[in-house]
Amino acid sequence: MEKLGMLYQGKAKKLYETDNPDVLWVEYTDQATAGNGAKKENIAGKAHLNNQITSVVFNLLARRGIPSHFIRRISDTEQLNRHMTMFPLEIVMRNKAAGSFAERYGVEEGTALKQPVLEFFYKSDALNDPFINREDILALDLASAQDLDIIASKTREINQALTAIFKAIEVELVDFKIEMGRSSQGVILLADEITPDTCRLWSTRNRDGGITHLDKDIFRRDLGSIIPAYQTILDGLTRLDRAEETGQD
Amino acid sequence: MEKLGMLYQGKAKKLYETDNPDVLWVEYTDQATAGNGAKKENIAGKAHLNNQITSVVFNLLARRGIPSHFIRRISDTEQLNRHMTMFPLEIVMRNKAAGSFAERYGVEEGTALKQPVLEFFYKSDALNDPFINREDILALDLASAQDLDIIASKTREINQALTAIFKAIEVELVDFKIEMGRSSQGVILLADEITPDTCRLWSTRNRDGGITHLDKDIFRRDLGSIIPAYQTILDGLTRLDRAEETGQD
Repeated sequence: MEKLGMLYQGKAKKLYETDNPDVLWVEYTDQATAGNGAKKENIAGKAHLNNQITSVVFNLLARRGIPSHFIRRISDTEQLNRHMTMFPLEIVMRNKAAGSFAERYGVEEGTALKQPVLEFFYKSDALNDPFINREDILALDLASAQDLDIIASKTREINQALTAIFKAIEVELVDFKIEMGRSSQGVILLADEITPDTCRLWSTRNRDGGITHLDKDIFRRDLGSIIPAYQTILDGLTRLDRAEETGQD
Repeated sequence: MEKLGMLYQGKAKKLYETDNPDVLWVEYTDQATAGNGAKKENIAGKAHLNNQITSVVFNLLARRGIPSHFIRRISDTEQLNRHMTMFPLEIVMRNKAAGSFAERYGVEEGTALKQPVLEFFYKSDALNDPFINREDILALDLASAQDLDIIASKTREINQALTAIFKAIEVELVDFKIEMGRSSQGVILLADEITPDTCRLWSTRNRDGGITHLDKDIFRRDLGSIIPAYQTILDGLTRLDRAEETGQD
C-alpha cells in the first residue's frame, strides 16, 4: 500500500489517497479544537490515543456485527480506512441531555430523556455546522428518505452496541457524533471516528463528586489534561477487546 | 359574552378570558417586532389589518374544510377564538428557501426546494425559540408521536389550501408559521393567526424588479411601510371571500 497525495485536512486528522482508489490512509494529529475551531491546541499524545481508541472501538463493533470503514491500524497514529462517499452530515445520538442540547433547550446537563434522540447537523465550517432536520435534508437533496432511514436505524444499533461496550468498562455513553458514507459497493457504513473527541463519556465510578468527564469536555471546559482520561478509555477498551479475543469475559 | 382578565400578552396581541371557559377574547395590537423582540415599533393600523386578514383567512380555510380556533370577529381589532391547550411549538412550512432557512444553510433566497419542508421551533422567549427536531420534541415530551403526525399532515393540508388561496390573489406563499392546540374536545386545531406577520408573501406581478414583499420582511428589512402591502393582501382576500360567498369565482 502506497501513501499518495493528501485529500483532505480535517481538524484532528489528515486523509491521503493510496494506490488503491478504495483505500484511504488516515493520519491522526495531536490537534484539539472546540467551538468549530474557535479554541485550538496541540496536545502531545492525542493522535496516538485516538488512533488506538477508534481502532479498538471499530473492532469491538465489527465483532458485534456492525461493520465500518475501518480496515486496520498501521502505526501508532495511522490507519487504513475504506474510501467512502460521505454524507455531508454529522449524525448525533443523545441518551441524556448534555452539551449543545442542554443549552439549546434550557435543560440541565444529565437530565434523562424520554427516549434517545437522533439529530443531524449539516457539515459546513462556513455555516458553523447548523442543526438540520430530516425534511430540510430531503429538500436540499443531501440524502434520500431511504438513506436517512438506513442511517437512523444503523445509528440506533450503534448506540445500543456502544452503550453496552462502554458500560462494560464502567463508562456511561451520554451522546456521540458519527458520520456515515456510501462504499464503492453502495453500502451505507459507519465512518469517521469514535473517540473521546466525538463521544461524551462519563465515569460510572464515584458519582458523589459530580460528573467525571472522560472526553473532550475536559478540553472544551478547561478542566485539565485530556491525556489521563483518554488513556483510561483506551486501557478499558483494550482490556475488553483482549478478554473477548481470548474468549474470557 | 363578557371580557374578563388578561391571560397573556403576546408580541402582537392580548388574550383575555371570557365568562365562557372555552372562549378567548383576542385583541390585536399595533406592535410590530422582529428578531424575537430586538426590533420593536408601533405601526398605526396594523391591529386593524391583521385582525381582518386572519379572520378572512380562517373563513376561507373553513370553507375548504379546514377548521381552526376562530369563532368570529367582533370589532376592528378584536375576535373570539376557541380556548385551546397550545403545543409549545412554532410550526413552520417552507415552499421556497427564504429568511432563516436561507441564512442557516447558505442558500439564496427564492431557491426552489425539492419538496416543501416542515420545521418546528420550541416556543421560548428565554431560549430565543430554538429550532427543534421531531425526536427532540418526543424526548422532551412536548408532544406525542401521534400528535406530531396529525400536526404534520394538517400543516401540509393548510399549506396546499393557503397556497391556492394566495395564488388566486396573485401572491406566492413562500413560507408561513402557524401554531396548533388541542380543543377542550380533544381535537388538534389550527390556532394563533395567519397574517403577513406570519407568512412570507411575494407578489407574482411584475417580477422584473426582483421580489415585491407583501409581508413583515418590509419591517424586518426596513423596506418602507407595511401598511400598503398589508392592505393589498386584505383587499385581495376580501374580494376572493366575497366572490366565493356569492358563488362567483
